[in-house]
Amino acid sequence: MSLSSSDIWQHLNGLTKPPGSLGRLEELAARLCDIQQTLSPQTSPRRLVIFAGDHGVVSAGVTVWPSAVTNLMLVNMCQGGAASTVLAGQSGTEVVLVNVGAIDDPITEPPTANSGVRYRSRRVCNGTRNLAIEPALTVDEFQQAWMIGEDEARSAVESQVKVVIAGEMGIGNTTPASCLAMLLADVPLDNAVGQGAGANETSLSQKRNVVEQAVARAREIWERDPVAAIASVAGLEIVAMAGFFVAAHRLGLTIILDGAVASSAALIAEHRSPGVSRSMIAAHLSTEPAHRAVLERLSLTPFLDWNMRLGEGTGALLLLPLLDAASAMISKMATLESFGISPKVTS
Amino acid sequence: MSLSSSDIWQHLNGLTKPPGSLGRLEELAARLCDIQQTLSPQTSPRRLVIFAGDHGVVSAGVTVWPSAVTNLMLVNMCQGGAASTVLAGQSGTEVVLVNVGAIDDPITEPPTANSGVRYRSRRVCNGTRNLAIEPALTVDEFQQAWMIGEDEARSAVESQVKVVIAGEMGIGNTTPASCLAMLLADVPLDNAVGQGAGANETSLSQKRNVVEQAVARAREIWERDPVAAIASVAGLEIVAMAGFFVAAHRLGLTIILDGAVASSAALIAEHRSPGVSRSMIAAHLSTEPAHRAVLERLSLTPFLDWNMRLGEGTGALLLLPLLDAASAMISKMATLESFGISPKVTS
Repeated sequence: MSLSSSDIWQHLNGLTKPPGSLGRLEELAARLCDIQQTLSPQTSPRRLVIFAGDHGVVSAGVTVWPSAVTNLMLVNMCQGGAASTVLAGQSGTEVVLVNVGAIDDPITEPPTANSGVRYRSRRVCNGTRNLAIEPALTVDEFQQAWMIGEDEARSAVESQVKVVIAGEMGIGNTTPASCLAMLLADVPLDNAVGQGAGANETSLSQKRNVVEQAVARAREIWERDPVAAIASVAGLEIVAMAGFFVAAHRLGLTIILDGAVASSAALIAEHRSPGVSRSMIAAHLSTEPAHRAVLERLSLTPFLDWNMRLGEGTGALLLLPLLDAASAMISKMATLESFGISPKVTS
Repeated sequence: MSLSSSDIWQHLNGLTKPPGSLGRLEELAARLCDIQQTLSPQTSPRRLVIFAGDHGVVSAGVTVWPSAVTNLMLVNMCQGGAASTVLAGQSGTEVVLVNVGAIDDPITEPPTANSGVRYRSRRVCNGTRNLAIEPALTVDEFQQAWMIGEDEARSAVESQVKVVIAGEMGIGNTTPASCLAMLLADVPLDNAVGQGAGANETSLSQKRNVVEQAVARAREIWERDPVAAIASVAGLEIVAMAGFFVAAHRLGLTIILDGAVASSAALIAEHRSPGVSRSMIAAHLSTEPAHRAVLERLSLTPFLDWNMRLGEGTGALLLLPLLDAASAMISKMATLESFGISPKVTS
C-alpha cells in the first residue's frame, strides 16, 4: 500500500487554507511525505556529516586559498566556529566530521562537547593527486572512500537519525565538481566552471584549462572503466559523499542535498545506483553555474535561491527549519471539513 | 555613534568563509544588524499580531469564500489549527489575535493555553461598508482602527518583544489591498488585481471592475482629504496593521513584513509616517501581481519567493528561522584573523 502523490495533495488541499496558497511550502511537504511515505513525516533526529579531503590540483593554481585552509577549517569546525557548525547548532543538527583525506590530521584531541561535533580520522591518503597531470584517485582509493561514506550512513541509522546532509570541506573541490558535471551530466565547459569559493580571473582561466583537459582524459578512460574515469577527476570527500548517498537511500534516510559539490557527488551516486535521487530534496541553487543543469539531471528542483556557494552543508542546513515547518503544517493543521468550510458556488 | 553598512560588511567579510559566500543569508544578517544597530542582533522574543476584519465588498462577488469564513478562522486560530498558529508554534512565536471588526465575535471563551494564542475583541464595527458602492470606512473608524494597532505595538514592547509580524485575516481583503496598491504605489489596474486567496474567473473580473471604480472615487476624495481617500478603500485590519507598523518603528521594533495585504498596510504607514519601512525586512514575494511593485515602492527586497498567498503572517513566520540563522552566523562564527587565514596573493 503506497501513499501516492494524489493522496498527499488531497490531504494538503483539505487543510484550512485555499488550495496551494502556501506555495512551495506545500511542495516541500509533499516531497517529504512522498519520500517517507507518510502524512506525518519526521525531520529529527538529523545529522550533518562533513567529509573533508584535499586536492592535488590546488598546486595548479585553480584557487586563491592554500590547501592549509582545509586543516584550519577542520580545527574551526571542531571548535564550533564554522558556518556549518553554527548553523547546525541553530537547527538542532548533530555534526560528524570525517577526515577522508586532508593533507594532514590537525585534530589531536576530541572536539569540546559544546562544539556539538564528533570527529573521525579515516584518511585514505594525503589528498588526491593533481588531476591537471594525472588521475586524481585510483579505483582502489575510490572504493575506500566510498566505503567510508557507506559506514557513515549506517552509523546514522544506528543512531535513529531520519534526515541526513552530506557536507564537504576541501580547498579546490569545485574543480573536480566541475569535471564531474561535464563527465556525468554533459554540462558544457563554459557552464561547468565557476568561481567556486575563491577563484580570481587568473585562477578561473587556469581552472577552465585544467577541467577541459582532465575531462578529455577521463572520457578516454571511460571506454574501458567508468569507475576509473570518475576516480580520475574526483575527490576523496566527493566519493565518500556518493557512497553515503547510496547507502542512505538504501537505508530509508531522507537526504537534504547541499550545493554544487554535494550535487556532483549525487551525480556519481545516481550513476552507480540509479534512483538514489528519489530520496533527495535539493535545498538550494548555488551560484556555481553548473549547478542548475546538474540538479535538472537529477530531476530535482531547489527550494532556496540565495546565491550561496560556501559548501560545508550550509545551504542544506538552512532548509531544515523550513522542512520542520512543512512537516508541522501537513501534520498539525485543521481540515476544512472539520469546520464545514467550502467556497461559495458562484453562477 | 552609528553602525554603518560598511562596518557591518567589514565584520561579515572577516568571518571564516569566502566573502559573500553565504549569499542572501549575509544580506539578511546585514539588514538585521542595520535595523538594530548592533553586530549581535536579537530575534526573540517575537510576536505575531493577527488583525481580523470583514469586508462589505464581499457582497459584490469579489471572492468565492463567504465572510463567515473569517469567523471560522478566528475559531481555528484560537484552537491552534490554522497555518499561522501552527507555523508560529514551530518558530517559537507568540500569537495575539485582535478582532478589529469581523462581522461577529465568535470567541466566547479565552483560547486554550496549548493553542499559544491570546485573543482580544476590539471591534470598531461589523466589518467595512461595501467599497463597490460607498467608502469602506469613515475617517473616525480609520483612526479607531489605527489606535488599536498602535496599542498592540506598545503591548509588544511592554512584553520585551524584539521582532514583530503583523498578520491579517479577512475574507475579501485583497480587494482593498489592490486598491491601496493603485492609490499609494501607482500600480496599474491590470497589475494591481490578482486572484487573492480565492477568486475564480468571474470573481476576478468583478474584482477588477470594483477596484477600478473605488480607486477613481478615492482619487477624487484625495484632493480634499488623503486620509478619507485611504479610508474609503481600506479595511479595519489593514488600517490597524498600518498603525501597528508606525508605532513599532517608533518604538524600535524590528518588523518582518508578510505578503500583499500586509504590504498594502505598509504603504499606508509609509505614507503617514515616511521612514517606517527602514525598520522592515520583507519576508517574501507573494503571487499577488501587485506585490513586487509595492515592495519596490517601499524600497524592500523580499527574501523568499515561494509562491505564497495565504496571509495570516505565514510568509513572515517562515523567514523567522532564517533570521535566527543569520543572527547566529554573524554573532557566533570565528574570524579569519583568529586563524591567520588569507587568500594567496597570485601573480
